[in-house]
Amino acid sequence: MQRLSITDPGFETAFTRLVDGRRESDITVSQDVATIVERVRRRGDTALAEYTRRFDKHDLVDDADWCIAPEACRAAYEGLDAPLRDALDLAAQRIEAYHRDQLPADRDFTDGAGVRLGARWQPVDAAGLYVPGGRAAYPSSLLMNAIPARVAGVERLVVVTPTRGGESNPLVLAAAHLAGVDEIWCIGGAQAIAALAYGTERIARVDVVTGPGNAWVAEAKRQLYGVVGIDMVAGPSEILVIADGDNDPDWIAADLLSQAEHDPTSQSILITDDAAFANQVEDRVDTQSAQLATRTTAQASWRDNGVMIVVETLDQAIPLANRLAAEHVELAVADPSSLFAGLRHAGSVFLGRHTPEAVGDYVAGPNHVLPTGRRARFASGLSVLDFMKRTSFIELDPGALAAIGPAAVALAEAEGLPAHANSVSMRLK
Amino acid sequence: MQRLSITDPGFETAFTRLVDGRRESDITVSQDVATIVERVRRRGDTALAEYTRRFDKHDLVDDADWCIAPEACRAAYEGLDAPLRDALDLAAQRIEAYHRDQLPADRDFTDGAGVRLGARWQPVDAAGLYVPGGRAAYPSSLLMNAIPARVAGVERLVVVTPTRGGESNPLVLAAAHLAGVDEIWCIGGAQAIAALAYGTERIARVDVVTGPGNAWVAEAKRQLYGVVGIDMVAGPSEILVIADGDNDPDWIAADLLSQAEHDPTSQSILITDDAAFANQVEDRVDTQSAQLATRTTAQASWRDNGVMIVVETLDQAIPLANRLAAEHVELAVADPSSLFAGLRHAGSVFLGRHTPEAVGDYVAGPNHVLPTGRRARFASGLSVLDFMKRTSFIELDPGALAAIGPAAVALAEAEGLPAHANSVSMRLK
Repeated sequence: MQRLSITDPGFETAFTRLVDGRRESDITVSQDVATIVERVRRRGDTALAEYTRRFDKHDLVDDADWCIAPEACRAAYEGLDAPLRDALDLAAQRIEAYHRDQLPADRDFTDGAGVRLGARWQPVDAAGLYVPGGRAAYPSSLLMNAIPARVAGVERLVVVTPTRGGESNPLVLAAAHLAGVDEIWCIGGAQAIAALAYGTERIARVDVVTGPGNAWVAEAKRQLYGVVGIDMVAGPSEILVIADGDNDPDWIAADLLSQAEHDPTSQSILITDDAAFANQVEDRVDTQSAQLATRTTAQASWRDNGVMIVVETLDQAIPLANRLAAEHVELAVADPSSLFAGLRHAGSVFLGRHTPEAVGDYVAGPNHVLPTGRRARFASGLSVLDFMKRTSFIELDPGALAAIGPAAVALAEAEGLPAHANSVSMRLK
Repeated sequence: MQRLSITDPGFETAFTRLVDGRRESDITVSQDVATIVERVRRRGDTALAEYTRRFDKHDLVDDADWCIAPEACRAAYEGLDAPLRDALDLAAQRIEAYHRDQLPADRDFTDGAGVRLGARWQPVDAAGLYVPGGRAAYPSSLLMNAIPARVAGVERLVVVTPTRGGESNPLVLAAAHLAGVDEIWCIGGAQAIAALAYGTERIARVDVVTGPGNAWVAEAKRQLYGVVGIDMVAGPSEILVIADGDNDPDWIAADLLSQAEHDPTSQSILITDDAAFANQVEDRVDTQSAQLATRTTAQASWRDNGVMIVVETLDQAIPLANRLAAEHVELAVADPSSLFAGLRHAGSVFLGRHTPEAVGDYVAGPNHVLPTGRRARFASGLSVLDFMKRTSFIELDPGALAAIGPAAVALAEAEGLPAHANSVSMRLK
């Protein structure tokens, strides 16, 4: 864990290093992924079966090997303990309600020159969702990816997920049932992304691919960007907690650890104006982390990537927060409004002392798929818009063309595009 | 030019080949671009000067070599002939008005569980616009990229443009003045994209890079996606005209040629229910194209990529149009409303007989940067949203946390993330 104070002479250098530091794994998988993608493109299901046998130790022979049936998902949902099923229901309802309000309005109007203009939003035909296998198979991620697609009106919702040795996670299947997933294919890795993008004999191609994955999955999405739409390539998770000394240090320590337990490359940062409070939090992080079932990961993350920054006043925290552009920002103060007003770059913000980031991971409603690695400077969390596209439209009558057509002719001629000019001027005669 | 009829036995095969055909140039520049990007990242302005000397025959020594001053842009604007200046003004006004209506609304509400939820949109800090050199330096493209950024509220607007031998296009400078561009750097190619993404000694980095370019520029954007935000990677332009036999064949021929004159890889497609009309249009394309200053390009495009499809009824055109997902679609019929209602995938639609696509290139108002190469299945034209990002926010008081917190605890425990659960359950005591 790194400790900085804004009054240190070396602060600016150390903070700049923090902002510019990359925590992404540097595995170069580009060539491997290109080979896999090309092979799935050319050989379809045969290539999928080969890679799945090799990487997931799973033989794709019968339909039952390839797909998980909707009945299995329903059975998994119905088999959940009631409190857990209720929690999943509540999460799904709240996520759906929040995302339903994101549906964009169409436009259709005629302006002063008599030109009819507008824009029409429509869902994509089909969306593919990647769900990682093993420990990282989170039902909450499935809901956060599938529900916005469903709200957008996507007709065909396809999940791909590696099932090592044929094993799948019943909680994920339950979530798939709840979200109304149409197909679940037992494939993973770069080969699954290629199958979604190009289609194979069994799997019809989709239009958009979202969802988290390892370095191979991320690189496949990057390489296929343009063949399909993709969500932002995600890096390790991160939290920035801005807290005064009046917080319970145990609460803040738990918030820092909730990011740290995700992955050793996750990053938890505390900025406070109270050095004694920072000491208390550090102490509680050590105490709490020792008791976690996830302690190996959480302790490694905190040791290697944890940061505590002491400032003189919390106002100084905001320019630092804007440079960090963190995925999650907690403003743990009595009245967060003025700090929030100055915050320019953040994926999602958690206001006040009673809003732990984890409520946003599960049940608050806004999406938990958020820009990481300083990308909140330019990117947004996943939304209904990622599963829709906008078509603009224009309609002129002869009067409207007479009003604006001559300017188009002048500009086309100036750009050296005479056929553009002709197509307008012929209609002006 | 390829001619198909829906009643041909081989139609489905030929049409599928058309839909799946790639017109992108297959130059593999990936390794070259990776080298350039890495060198600009490490060596900054030194690398920029070397590449600019080599590729653009332009020496970057003094400030005047590096930058085009705002005064030069103002002088270029004031030096335009009055009709051309008026046309540029009209275009800028109409583009601005259309895009101002795209500004998204923030959300801030408290739901039935007492949870405050919302989303706040803010512009990125800085945007970089690529403007190609030479013939493809279009002032209309500068307006279409710069004005949405300005409307979004972007504070710093940076243009990069190669100035071969130090030459720049006065119309582009005039458009830069009109759009309020803050900086113009005389650099181009992959090296310019790398400079915008990483920053150099002279050039501060930006957050989003948009604008058209050659294969090197497109590949650099693809490689730097995630370091900066980018707009969709663009391929060759295309138009699909759906027309009945009551159109003036000269008008439709001009519309087809207005795409063909862009580039030999551009594609113009006519679908009509009148075979005799198709013959007339073919004839007029030949006549008109012979008289164009752009005939070499237009004739090559029409010969190699032009398509005419005869259908039995125009209703049959719509499923074909949805598979083509063209950048531009004209519906040249008396009442286009029912055809338009069935159209699912198109970048921009031009309704009726008096709406040539070229009015959309210049003065209608909607953006002319549109998804190409069937990407209208999942992508939209450039908009104000490309220069903004959304931050979600959540605020709970103890009552709201008591209402939804227990579900978060249950889900966190089920996912094996105890620190997530702790951060909520501690606050519930």
